[in-house]
Amino acid sequence: MRTLIKDAASKAGEEVELKGWVDSRRDHGKLIFIDIRDRSGKIQAVALPNHKEIHEICGFLRPEGVIKATGKINLRPENMINKNEANGTVELEITAIEVLSAAKDIPFESDAEINIDTYLDYLPYTLRREKARAVFKTQSVIARSFRNFFSGEEFVEIQAPKLIGDDAEGGANSFDVGYFGHTAHLAQSPQFYKQIMVGVFERVFTIGNVYRAEKHSTTRHLNEYTSMDIEMGFIKDHSDIMAMENSFLKSLEETLRKECAGEFELLEAEIPVVPDRIPAMTLREAQSLITKETGNDCTAEPDLEPEHERWLCAYAKEKLGSDFIFITGFPTSKRPFYTYRDEKDPAYTKGFDLLFRGVEITTGSQRIHDYDDLVSSIREKGLDPEKFAFYLQAFKYGMPPHGGFGMGLERLTQKMFNLPNVKEAALFPRDINRIDRLLSTD
Amino acid sequence: MRTLIKDAASKAGEEVELKGWVDSRRDHGKLIFIDIRDRSGKIQAVALPNHKEIHEICGFLRPEGVIKATGKINLRPENMINKNEANGTVELEITAIEVLSAAKDIPFESDAEINIDTYLDYLPYTLRREKARAVFKTQSVIARSFRNFFSGEEFVEIQAPKLIGDDAEGGANSFDVGYFGHTAHLAQSPQFYKQIMVGVFERVFTIGNVYRAEKHSTTRHLNEYTSMDIEMGFIKDHSDIMAMENSFLKSLEETLRKECAGEFELLEAEIPVVPDRIPAMTLREAQSLITKETGNDCTAEPDLEPEHERWLCAYAKEKLGSDFIFITGFPTSKRPFYTYRDEKDPAYTKGFDLLFRGVEITTGSQRIHDYDDLVSSIREKGLDPEKFAFYLQAFKYGMPPHGGFGMGLERLTQKMFNLPNVKEAALFPRDINRIDRLLSTD
Repeated sequence: MRTLIKDAASKAGEEVELKGWVDSRRDHGKLIFIDIRDRSGKIQAVALPNHKEIHEICGFLRPEGVIKATGKINLRPENMINKNEANGTVELEITAIEVLSAAKDIPFESDAEINIDTYLDYLPYTLRREKARAVFKTQSVIARSFRNFFSGEEFVEIQAPKLIGDDAEGGANSFDVGYFGHTAHLAQSPQFYKQIMVGVFERVFTIGNVYRAEKHSTTRHLNEYTSMDIEMGFIKDHSDIMAMENSFLKSLEETLRKECAGEFELLEAEIPVVPDRIPAMTLREAQSLITKETGNDCTAEPDLEPEHERWLCAYAKEKLGSDFIFITGFPTSKRPFYTYRDEKDPAYTKGFDLLFRGVEITTGSQRIHDYDDLVSSIREKGLDPEKFAFYLQAFKYGMPPHGGFGMGLERLTQKMFNLPNVKEAALFPRDINRIDRLLSTD
Repeated sequence: MRTLIKDAASKAGEEVELKGWVDSRRDHGKLIFIDIRDRSGKIQAVALPNHKEIHEICGFLRPEGVIKATGKINLRPENMINKNEANGTVELEITAIEVLSAAKDIPFESDAEINIDTYLDYLPYTLRREKARAVFKTQSVIARSFRNFFSGEEFVEIQAPKLIGDDAEGGANSFDVGYFGHTAHLAQSPQFYKQIMVGVFERVFTIGNVYRAEKHSTTRHLNEYTSMDIEMGFIKDHSDIMAMENSFLKSLEETLRKECAGEFELLEAEIPVVPDRIPAMTLREAQSLITKETGNDCTAEPDLEPEHERWLCAYAKEKLGSDFIFITGFPTSKRPFYTYRDEKDPAYTKGFDLLFRGVEITTGSQRIHDYDDLVSSIREKGLDPEKFAFYLQAFKYGMPPHGGFGMGLERLTQKMFNLPNVKEAALFPRDINRIDRLLSTD
């Protein structure tokens, strides 16, 4: 009967059977020490010279080999206790060992300093490193926290399709798919489907892959990423969506403190404090502020440059005590056709971006819910309403005032841990040069 | 302050504000009755002739229009009580009404008998029907139940990529994607990635889209569907995976009884009873049984025909009292290269199918975990190990005995409700002829 390593410390004096990977091996001649790792933790095991056969097997073990080790949990002598480790007070004295799967040579030591390309070349190995495991365990907690929060708010989960037909918005950023003699595309967001589903369930959420055929390779873009999306009906305006996102982030903070404190400590990152009310300013207010404080006049620009996003986040952190800041009131010209316009100033929209630690992590807005307004807005963007006929049906049959937001799971994870590259926050990142392996240049 | 309709019955005598869709309208001249629907339920509202303006607005309302109706919750007179409805004892007397979104003409009545093509042509409307809502609410509960169960068993959720590079298995069923001058493909399963991640977390699950470029259009196939997948390390053999799936299905049954009893009643379907131990037989036992009982000799066939799956399910239901039956021991020749072979009889595998109400809903197995065995198996299938180099890394570095299964969310949903077509269990189904709208035949 297997004992999980996390339970070993409470079994001093007992016989146990452990299964796991050889995390490291230190051969002291007479004594061979092996750190065994399983999904729950790590423990030091020792092969004594009197167990000749065991000693021999342990002499040949390589890192990452998979073993079953039976033995006794002993308390360590006082001078060998390591108070910084979960199992620092005990060790396993191996009395039997079986190699379940021998490892071949590892490409480099698990704690070697490597560059991002090497990290990506060897993902099946590098993902096993402690820091990578901490990142992706936390990512799974973020996704669960998102679902639990919105399920609790009576949102229904939907499965949005990723294969779409007409590339109706006509972006250059869409991947083409050969589809039985036709050309289909990969969805850039679940936008139209989540809006349609507001007509069905009022409140929906979905987590799934989305695709951007962007040709650049940066530290903050992925060609395939995971989007966490919500859409909700019967709102007053976009401020209801912002309030809902604010509440989600507060509940996420709580969950991270409860479940991932160790992961943040390991990665030397801080769990962000989410204010009861995340500060918000309009784009114009933000631009005036930047202009006044930095002397660089950006008041004529229709959007925020990356450097402005960084500046605003630093400002929010320092002056407003928040890792997060909402920016509202983007111009209609820079937002998609479905974005609701401010009645008082139709050149501006009822939408927002949420900035976090230097980057935009969310775009959201109230949406146009009136059929005729929506058709006009499509035309004003130079698009053809006929191409949106399926989506437009939802609006023909009555749609409540609604809105929503989308949030990239990988980018959020990246910024949580201040990772230099978003590719370290995607399990198997795709970019212009790489799908698992580098794409050949033939 | 909005009241949800489900809470209306407890507010008799009170003033409330309801928001929702016009589910139906019955104009009795002096009295106009409107059934209002929101995400929580349905209620009858009445416009009395003395409220002239309200009466007029209600006279023009069309089904699916979105309204805000204020008024008093009255107890219905004894002879108007409908005991079969949640709000059958009350009605709203409208004292103010506002049209939030007027509906244009609906294409047909919501209870009209329609064929599958009409259903699909008008999804933004037909998904609003009571039965469709019940199907997809239940589907969201199934997905949540899957995640909760496996999270509880210490499985970590992963985000598997859907864009893959080499179509290493060389199937004809893979969609091509134009990828920056290269050809990428859409994943047919998360198989390789979930196996790699066993090396990282031991136990992982993932829910995501997968793609099959199958040219036929049947009532049980989709070209894009949602796969619920698990993979777990340190197993004895495939029976551990079957036991884990059995436990999941038992927990699913419990959740469905708690949360979806009304949905099953509405769709006149039964929540399946999951035995503590789902019956299992080998393919050869199944074939002998079929041959003996039906007189049709199928003992030489390498797999089960659809009619045999139906027969076995009928047999399991009648003779073994189970809606589910496991079939094990499929021949190596019919299973993918990574399937573990039975040491006692290497022409057969340590894998299984799970049949439910006439169809296979799961394929699972123990996998080969030894690097050299896996390379040999790839070669024996006539494939090139070099194309699997990325995946094979995981096995170079030590992999425990492991296995897993995949389960199509839509097919499971279909069979739960005995829907004639799996397309009624996928929100926006894609097939050879259709992506939302029929593909043009130009």
